[in-house]
Amino acid sequence: MEHFEKGVVTKAGLNGTGLRVLIVHTRWNLPVVEALVKGTVNTLQAHGVEATNIVIKDVPGAYELPFASQSLLQSAKVPFDACISIGVLIKGSTMHFEYIADATSQGLMRVGLDTRIPVIFGVLTCLTEDQAFERAGLGRGPSKGHNHGEDWAQAAIEMALLNRG
Amino acid sequence: MEHFEKGVVTKAGLNGTGLRVLIVHTRWNLPVVEALVKGTVNTLQAHGVEATNIVIKDVPGAYELPFASQSLLQSAKVPFDACISIGVLIKGSTMHFEYIADATSQGLMRVGLDTRIPVIFGVLTCLTEDQAFERAGLGRGPSKGHNHGEDWAQAAIEMALLNRG
Amino acid sequence: MEHFEKGVVTKAGLNGTGLRVLIVHTRWNLPVVEALVKGTVNTLQAHGVEATNIVIKDVPGAYELPFASQSLLQSAKVPFDACISIGVLIKGSTMHFEYIADATSQGLMRVGLDTRIPVIFGVLTCLTEDQAFERAGLGRGPSKGHNHGEDWAQAAIEMALLNRG
Amino acid sequence: MEHFEKGVVTKAGLNGTGLRVLIVHTRWNLPVVEALVKGTVNTLQAHGVEATNIVIKDVPGAYELPFASQSLLQSAKVPFDACISIGVLIKGSTMHFEYIADATSQGLMRVGLDTRIPVIFGVLTCLTEDQAFERAGLGRGPSKGHNHGEDWAQAAIEMALLNRG
Amino acid sequence: MEHFEKGVVTKAGLNGTGLRVLIVHTRWNLPVVEALVKGTVNTLQAHGVEATNIVIKDVPGAYELPFASQSLLQSAKVPFDACISIGVLIKGSTMHFEYIADATSQGLMRVGLDTRIPVIFGVLTCLTEDQAFERAGLGRGPSKGHNHGEDWAQAAIEMALLNRG
Repeated sequence: MEHFEKGVVTKAGLNGTGLRVLIVHTRWNLPVVEALVKGTVNTLQAHGVEATNIVIKDVPGAYELPFASQSLLQSAKVPFDACISIGVLIKGSTMHFEYIADATSQGLMRVGLDTRIPVIFGVLTCLTEDQAFERAGLGRGPSKGHNHGEDWAQAAIEMALLNRG
Repeated sequence: MEHFEKGVVTKAGLNGTGLRVLIVHTRWNLPVVEALVKGTVNTLQAHGVEATNIVIKDVPGAYELPFASQSLLQSAKVPFDACISIGVLIKGSTMHFEYIADATSQGLMRVGLDTRIPVIFGVLTCLTEDQAFERAGLGRGPSKGHNHGEDWAQAAIEMALLNRG
Repeated sequence: MEHFEKGVVTKAGLNGTGLRVLIVHTRWNLPVVEALVKGTVNTLQAHGVEATNIVIKDVPGAYELPFASQSLLQSAKVPFDACISIGVLIKGSTMHFEYIADATSQGLMRVGLDTRIPVIFGVLTCLTEDQAFERAGLGRGPSKGHNHGEDWAQAAIEMALLNRG
Repeated sequence: MEHFEKGVVTKAGLNGTGLRVLIVHTRWNLPVVEALVKGTVNTLQAHGVEATNIVIKDVPGAYELPFASQSLLQSAKVPFDACISIGVLIKGSTMHFEYIADATSQGLMRVGLDTRIPVIFGVLTCLTEDQAFERAGLGRGPSKGHNHGEDWAQAAIEMALLNRG
Repeated sequence: MEHFEKGVVTKAGLNGTGLRVLIVHTRWNLPVVEALVKGTVNTLQAHGVEATNIVIKDVPGAYELPFASQSLLQSAKVPFDACISIGVLIKGSTMHFEYIADATSQGLMRVGLDTRIPVIFGVLTCLTEDQAFERAGLGRGPSKGHNHGEDWAQAAIEMALLNRG
């Protein structure tokens, strides 16, 4: 293989009209999270998801994401078609990062499989602050990086459509 | 991003009046745990949770937390709105720390998702004693640190309210 | 033991005639994934699986594989006999690789056990790009390597037949 | 904090009269296991558990503990109030230790949550033989160490009483 | 403790007459696996299990073991009393080993707990080929090592009898 560029190939023509999307985000490292949520919402709308069909809720930290996602999906009066669970974990000096990241990633997987509504894993698991900034389009170096919220929004629409069949 | 401060942004105006909160805590490294429980209780009351609505139970170690939390939540005559499971794990010379922390963090996640009552992960997973002291407001250095029980109390109220819808 | 060659011993005489096989693949590192999918499809057909009985769906990333596999298996009008979930994870600078690989491998295991339809784990978990190329038959060194899609196709047929009893 | 002693604070006045306790232990590293079982039984009896209410079963290795604990708890003609699952894992040259310890600790957690009978994690996960001896009161150095069976017995009584409500 | 020999203490007088045992084995590193299966079968028969009561099935790799074990246990016309799932994983250059070993060990644990039929973990998780040879009685050094299939056979009989009560 001569040329190879790591990364995801986006799907053309995604149309989110009529889809209802739940966003649950944490408030740890909030400036980064807010940039990610903004990137997510902008991309949802750019693909046709109406603003009134986007519900945004927040929780304190990543460990709360699976519970809140399940609770909000199951109690919704009008069902959601997808959930995007967003957080930013940055490695600290204790082992908190590892256990939270592990339980959260497994927990969100469970919630998707149990509820049969796609749950997008929008949690950055970074070893440094700079890694988080770059993945939220806030990089302080020569490049501002890429806002991963854009990918999550597209993934949510795509998975919602796949799930509708 | 010019300025960035790691940490959680607290939610303004949390009102815990009428909420019933279960606290289950371990007795390993008890002085640290007691400080965390105290910080938790004080913060619950500062946000309106009545003292009569706070039930405190203790277990020996962290591995007992998921079982006890589930048992107490399911057998409660008056239902609880949230559970805060508190413990302090400090890395020792065997692999006990790793397996207990892993099973406990996954177990508490399961209990929350199964019972549909929010379970706050109030378990410190520290590599040194000093890390534990600093996270209980008992730091021996220039700063006494921050008592994480305050965060857990707020998280419990917030998640209980979210779960009520 | 004088001679020992690591690797799998293939089963002779596998006949996939009449079997319906679902392939779900990611679009991260797509050139590698496409080679793997091609190797999978060719081998399925070489063993008698009709082209009309092979359904190929794609998702953005590996974390979506368990959900999509479950959703497509459960909503199929004509049941599938096996599912092959294909993706290519390459270690990056954050811990994303580890948490995605862990949740995905456990999630796909769950989907197989829950649906009682065999789910083949076609996810490469590589530390370098070259490792991925070599396992897709795209090696840039003296050997082009081996396309693991061929193994996954045979595994899918074999497990489908075993599951039929 | 001036003084701090790591360890568990035992609960005063535990009374196990009338409680039925199941002990399941492995036979790997049996001399150490036997010392732990003896410490467990002695402590159970010292707190009032009648000898006729203590049932001791053995299995080959730690991976068998969750299955045997579940099987014996569920088939008991007179129900047990608690289960203590005892084993000694010592790190060897393969990765056997890690995978057995992980599956066993998660499996025993599941059995407790599923059966609603407390399961005490009496499995030592040691990196050296000396670590195991010291935790069974068999230390070869200046101190004989502490027999962890004593803690497990007390934990079993305490959790059984908590679970009765 | 003066003398201490690591290892398992076998149970005297195990009688497998009338027990039906399922063996599922992989075909990766087949010469080693075959030696393990042979050691397993010989030991089963030495303890009274009739040849007609031993059913041997094979799958490609370790990730297939939980699914195949569950499928064969659940579809058996005459129920099995135990299952021995055998495979040999050897660490390679990617992370495949770790994720397969983890999902397989957790998956087999689940299958035993779900089906209530004991599933023996007969999977070697080795860092080198020599480690695998030595645990299959095929060691190339001064000692040929010990065939772990013998232990698994005894464990299967013992657990089947324990499970019958």
